[in-house]
Amino acid sequence: MSVLSPALSQTLRIRFGDRFSISQALREQHGRGESHHTPAIPDAVVFAESTEDVAEIVRLCAAEDVPVIAFGAGTSLEGHLTAVRGGVSIDLSRMSQIVRVSAEDLDCTVEAGVSREQLNTHLRDMGLFFPIDPGANASIGGMASTRASGTNAVRYGTMRENVLSLTVVLPSGQVIRTGGRARKSSAGYDLTRLFVGSEGTLGIITEVTLRLYGIPETISAALCSFESVEQAVNAAIAVVQLGIPVARMELMDRGLIAAVNAYSNLSLKIEDTLAFEFHGFPAGVQEQVEMVKAIVEENGGKDFEWANAPEERNRLWKARHNAFYAVVSQRPHAKGWSSDVCVPVSQLSSCILKTRDLLRGCSVPAAILGHVGDGNYHVVFAVDPGNQAELNEVAAINKKMVQHAISVGGTSTGEHGVGTGKIGYLRGEHGDAVDLMAVIKHAIDPTGIMNPGKVLPG
Amino acid sequence: MSVLSPALSQTLRIRFGDRFSISQALREQHGRGESHHTPAIPDAVVFAESTEDVAEIVRLCAAEDVPVIAFGAGTSLEGHLTAVRGGVSIDLSRMSQIVRVSAEDLDCTVEAGVSREQLNTHLRDMGLFFPIDPGANASIGGMASTRASGTNAVRYGTMRENVLSLTVVLPSGQVIRTGGRARKSSAGYDLTRLFVGSEGTLGIITEVTLRLYGIPETISAALCSFESVEQAVNAAIAVVQLGIPVARMELMDRGLIAAVNAYSNLSLKIEDTLAFEFHGFPAGVQEQVEMVKAIVEENGGKDFEWANAPEERNRLWKARHNAFYAVVSQRPHAKGWSSDVCVPVSQLSSCILKTRDLLRGCSVPAAILGHVGDGNYHVVFAVDPGNQAELNEVAAINKKMVQHAISVGGTSTGEHGVGTGKIGYLRGEHGDAVDLMAVIKHAIDPTGIMNPGKVLPG
Repeated sequence: MSVLSPALSQTLRIRFGDRFSISQALREQHGRGESHHTPAIPDAVVFAESTEDVAEIVRLCAAEDVPVIAFGAGTSLEGHLTAVRGGVSIDLSRMSQIVRVSAEDLDCTVEAGVSREQLNTHLRDMGLFFPIDPGANASIGGMASTRASGTNAVRYGTMRENVLSLTVVLPSGQVIRTGGRARKSSAGYDLTRLFVGSEGTLGIITEVTLRLYGIPETISAALCSFESVEQAVNAAIAVVQLGIPVARMELMDRGLIAAVNAYSNLSLKIEDTLAFEFHGFPAGVQEQVEMVKAIVEENGGKDFEWANAPEERNRLWKARHNAFYAVVSQRPHAKGWSSDVCVPVSQLSSCILKTRDLLRGCSVPAAILGHVGDGNYHVVFAVDPGNQAELNEVAAINKKMVQHAISVGGTSTGEHGVGTGKIGYLRGEHGDAVDLMAVIKHAIDPTGIMNPGKVLPG
Repeated sequence: MSVLSPALSQTLRIRFGDRFSISQALREQHGRGESHHTPAIPDAVVFAESTEDVAEIVRLCAAEDVPVIAFGAGTSLEGHLTAVRGGVSIDLSRMSQIVRVSAEDLDCTVEAGVSREQLNTHLRDMGLFFPIDPGANASIGGMASTRASGTNAVRYGTMRENVLSLTVVLPSGQVIRTGGRARKSSAGYDLTRLFVGSEGTLGIITEVTLRLYGIPETISAALCSFESVEQAVNAAIAVVQLGIPVARMELMDRGLIAAVNAYSNLSLKIEDTLAFEFHGFPAGVQEQVEMVKAIVEENGGKDFEWANAPEERNRLWKARHNAFYAVVSQRPHAKGWSSDVCVPVSQLSSCILKTRDLLRGCSVPAAILGHVGDGNYHVVFAVDPGNQAELNEVAAINKKMVQHAISVGGTSTGEHGVGTGKIGYLRGEHGDAVDLMAVIKHAIDPTGIMNPGKVLPG
């Protein structure tokens, strides 16, 4: 039964016309992300076209204690979009204006529905790029909400480091800006960072001001294969510890390479592989490459295979980005379950080896991949969401992997967010600090209408 | 009159022995920072030696609604330490243990009272360093509390980017840890960033886990003089816009150079000057130096004067660090008033020129210096705190400078914090977002005992 009263439905319909919908197909599409989580369908979808639209929807819903869930590109992996208490899905995908770009200040302001690829296409001719790259063509608002990162984070940081300020609609419908355009500020509480990663549970992000970077003068990419995951990870750790500023350093285990070859029609060597990218000026890049080559060699790595032409590089990274889909496509009608932990780099090798042990005998296809420069890695499973035994099996593996990561000082999620999927681990990771999170949540959203059932347990 | 009841005083005295003091001299020393702000003396000082000590002091004070103010090294510039409602100053300087250092993970955990120089002395033999460098030999806890940065921020970021997690005593006396040791995490609200920059108004930071860096293989430093501030700033902006990863890029105007020569017994050319430092591997550093030289030349800069021997470099940066004291010492019995704004780099040149116009005819010594790579600059005035006309004159200049910075998208404080000194600008900068800050403050510290009268207006 809908939690929207007939009166509220009517008000929204009058105000938003055919941008308000209760179509079953549309609601189903808005109650799920890209992963295995059981969908939970909102009672209605409204397409917002401005911050004012969002503020008005929130105000109307708040008056009746109706939940609101922000929807961007729908690429969530941890159940962020499920309407577990019903309510209204606010679709921000039409808020796709790039409001301004400053090449001088290396920053821009975009509406929350702008996608990562749209932004980078727009920036390319200006010689600029936005490096945060979670793989999926996510919306910038969604990336801010989940504190996303991805392949370039080892060099450029995550959304935490690259969002300068936000426009946010609060649960009351009030609109605030969380900061200005200065590169740094000590003026008051860091509201920007409070909303980055809050997954729509404190407010809805409608505009984002981002740091940008010049496209590097020199970009080199290379693949290097190893006889074991351990060798590959040890090479990666040595690169980090020496402080070599690689731009990307990605682990793909041999299972993943096989899946990627099949999915993306490539013929990469089926071995445990590190993919590197180097950004900078010519001499500096050359120096980095030589140092990394020496480290790779010391750790048993084979020759670099270069992918320096832009189209080769794009092909390589596109294949890497499609890793999730490559694993899932190994099995008809499967859904992906992508777990995500991040540990101190000194623990990375032993954690990944423990994870491989856990995967031995796993009854569903699974592969390990990781942004190993940050200590962040994922296991992607291809699961049948209708098969409870299988889900239980993967859940048990996931649990062991996450608990081990937390036990060595790591986190239950490096970049996918908590959503519903990691909610059970929050207290184990943060202890009593979870109570403080709940105090903040209650102070900002006392009636609990903002994306209920996400992030905070209980 | 003391806000401490005789019973509370007695309880603290019994519990802490001679670590509890009501000596006038000690209280006076704890009611002020290093700048011109009128001191406000706490009713007592307690020297904490552990997180548990801090928790116990806070619990005892909370029971009687007595304010608590954390004190580290006493180097605050914006009145953070003034006991405007009386209460207890909790001195953390004896919490000076370096708890652990991991060379493998490039991180460490220190007690809040550890000083920046103490930490770097400890790290040097391990080939590591902590780059955040506000000039003063501040405590790490104080640096976290004010979101400090300084000369290296253009390359390494600020405390915002370099604190991995915190141990915090909440107003209830409860102790939390805000995160683990993973380089990145999407697991819940970013409590670390909420406490970084909260100036002791939400809780007291007792331990800090920090990112560390390897001491660069190659370090080069150079000075370059210009005929005008405008030329120097334009050169700095060009370096930023080209993405050259300089480690330091500091502006010192000719007035400052004269003061620094006198104070530090140097003979630098009395011209508007940029000081550079380059960090990295040999070829990359050489490449950076050549690019920066070309930019400097295009902008009318003169030859680089190198300071490559470690002792020369240390002398240069020590002189830069003493800039505040150098300006103040130009006038007997003066106090320093150091204002601090940060603007988008495209606005930096016009902001600094406007500031120079404001300083024309100013009746007290004043100099401009800045971390210009971040768009951050300071004016240091040497004022007589007993001369109200003079204070009014400087306040008027400061107000115009800050309001202009805010009007171009900048901030009222890049790194010194709000304290009492910038409190009047917070609403002008953040608008209604200040109300949200107040909601958070009230939720976490409902009785307002944590460093009252700081950060939030009214």
